Amino acid sequence: MLALTILGNNSALPAFDRNPTAQLLQTQEEAYLIDCGEGTQIQMSKYKIRRSKISHVFISHLHGDHYFGLIGLLTSMSLLGRTQDLHLHAPPELEQIINLQLTVADTRLSYNLIFHPLSNEGLILDDKKMTVHCFSMNHRIPCWGFLFSEKKNPRKIDASRALIYEIPAAFYERLQMGEDYVNKKGTIIPNEEVTLPAPAPKTYAYCADTIYDESLIEKVKGVDLLYHETTYLKDLHVRAAERFHSTTIQAADIARRAGVKKLLIGHFSSKYETVDEFLTEARTVFDNTELALQGSCYPIPG
Amino acid sequence: MLALTILGNNSALPAFDRNPTAQLLQTQEEAYLIDCGEGTQIQMSKYKIRRSKISHVFISHLHGDHYFGLIGLLTSMSLLGRTQDLHLHAPPELEQIINLQLTVADTRLSYNLIFHPLSNEGLILDDKKMTVHCFSMNHRIPCWGFLFSEKKNPRKIDASRALIYEIPAAFYERLQMGEDYVNKKGTIIPNEEVTLPAPAPKTYAYCADTIYDESLIEKVKGVDLLYHETTYLKDLHVRAAERFHSTTIQAADIARRAGVKKLLIGHFSSKYETVDEFLTEARTVFDNTELALQGSCYPIPG
Repeated sequence: MLALTILGNNSALPAFDRNPTAQLLQTQEEAYLIDCGEGTQIQMSKYKIRRSKISHVFISHLHGDHYFGLIGLLTSMSLLGRTQDLHLHAPPELEQIINLQLTVADTRLSYNLIFHPLSNEGLILDDKKMTVHCFSMNHRIPCWGFLFSEKKNPRKIDASRALIYEIPAAFYERLQMGEDYVNKKGTIIPNEEVTLPAPAPKTYAYCADTIYDESLIEKVKGVDLLYHETTYLKDLHVRAAERFHSTTIQAADIARRAGVKKLLIGHFSSKYETVDEFLTEARTVFDNTELALQGSCYPIPG
Repeated sequence: MLALTILGNNSALPAFDRNPTAQLLQTQEEAYLIDCGEGTQIQMSKYKIRRSKISHVFISHLHGDHYFGLIGLLTSMSLLGRTQDLHLHAPPELEQIINLQLTVADTRLSYNLIFHPLSNEGLILDDKKMTVHCFSMNHRIPCWGFLFSEKKNPRKIDASRALIYEIPAAFYERLQMGEDYVNKKGTIIPNEEVTLPAPAPKTYAYCADTIYDESLIEKVKGVDLLYHETTYLKDLHVRAAERFHSTTIQAADIARRAGVKKLLIGHFSSKYETVDEFLTEARTVFDNTELALQGSCYPIPG
């Protein structure tokens, strides 16, 4: 299970009940918070998100609509008595800002906040079940994209068949890894006889603020779900370029050429009261597109 | 006209749809923002507040529930193209925090943000129609209260009577200031004959986070409206003192002994799902008490 919940889908300033950017990627055991615009902790309450499940936070860049809600979330977690470590992957300057805000408030967090400054493209997290790579984006200030990749899942044991072949429980873990079993008589029991295939590991790529940039195609090639910003409709492609943002058509073009399974679009400009037209336009280029809607949960397609 | 709108009435973390502290004091022409917890700009949209009317912002202290929403508001004002000056009265360290956040975002505000660090008790603003004094509060970190005093209003001219006495319009401004008129024959027309009394100037005192402190009584003596925090109900007076906060009874005691006209209470702890009991308790000591409720507008009593 890998699913993405949208907590905020707007750009720059909150408008029309759309909050600035924040997303939560959840596995069975962990939750990864991606960007944290103002009001994210309030959105979490609204959508019944368990903050204690969050182990890692990823901040793409230091424009306020992507991180002004973080300090409030961090201090609230402390007030609620959190004890487990929290890992923060973000541009290096954020550490100074947070430390300054904690210092002037004479506040010591109840948990360890472990800061991981983003500086080079590559692997930034190697968890039990997930790896995360960051890659640089092309925005007005330094900005990072994130690629989440589930690790290979263990195969599922078909317990009734394993019993028939008298395979001891102690060997089950090796079965899950795909090993064949050799019984006392020297007979080989092929792994496929007693196990079922694991669900394919899934991938999610998050592309926050970026100008249309073909170099992204290689970085997100073939992912199951791609989130790509669409600040503007296609007619405003000149303004989009001037402000280092993308249009519907440009996001869909990246998705199509990268051969992703599905595209999710968001970071809508506050000038638009409704966003349906974003979907219509993007689908003319890449049909399997959806709008990132607040409160909605998108399972990563398999 | 002097009226106070509550944008947030909770302490520490947002809970039960109560936002952290923010208030807006409005005259006919100006609006003064007092504290600015996370989500204040969203509350302003909800309650149809015109941000452009805000000329001065006052921040009591640097605990996050009183200022984490400020940077978002400041940058949104800029994105919306504000040009008029904005004055910020706040503890000195806030300037560094804001400048750092603007620098990392490579952002230059579209207007002048004029910083006035709070350092000594006394007059901090002398406007055309209002003075503001700050006074120190007794909290865990440096904290300021604010006293807003309307200046003496001009008397109202009774136009029909002024015509009867043939008073030239050029003299009206002096009439408003209370001067008598002497006509060509040397007859004195007493001011009261041709003017009506001005509404009495009003006063509002804002006491953010504070332990029960009798020295406040002198500072808020006789104000028309006193806002005093009540983080806890009376049974938690020990916890209140430990955390430099106040209870219902303590706030009401200050109001009663200071002889204020009306008391407004807020900054409720997130442990309380409902707040009606706050009112019941406070009224046992000071009857003219009201709860600070979000979205409600309280005219300052005359």
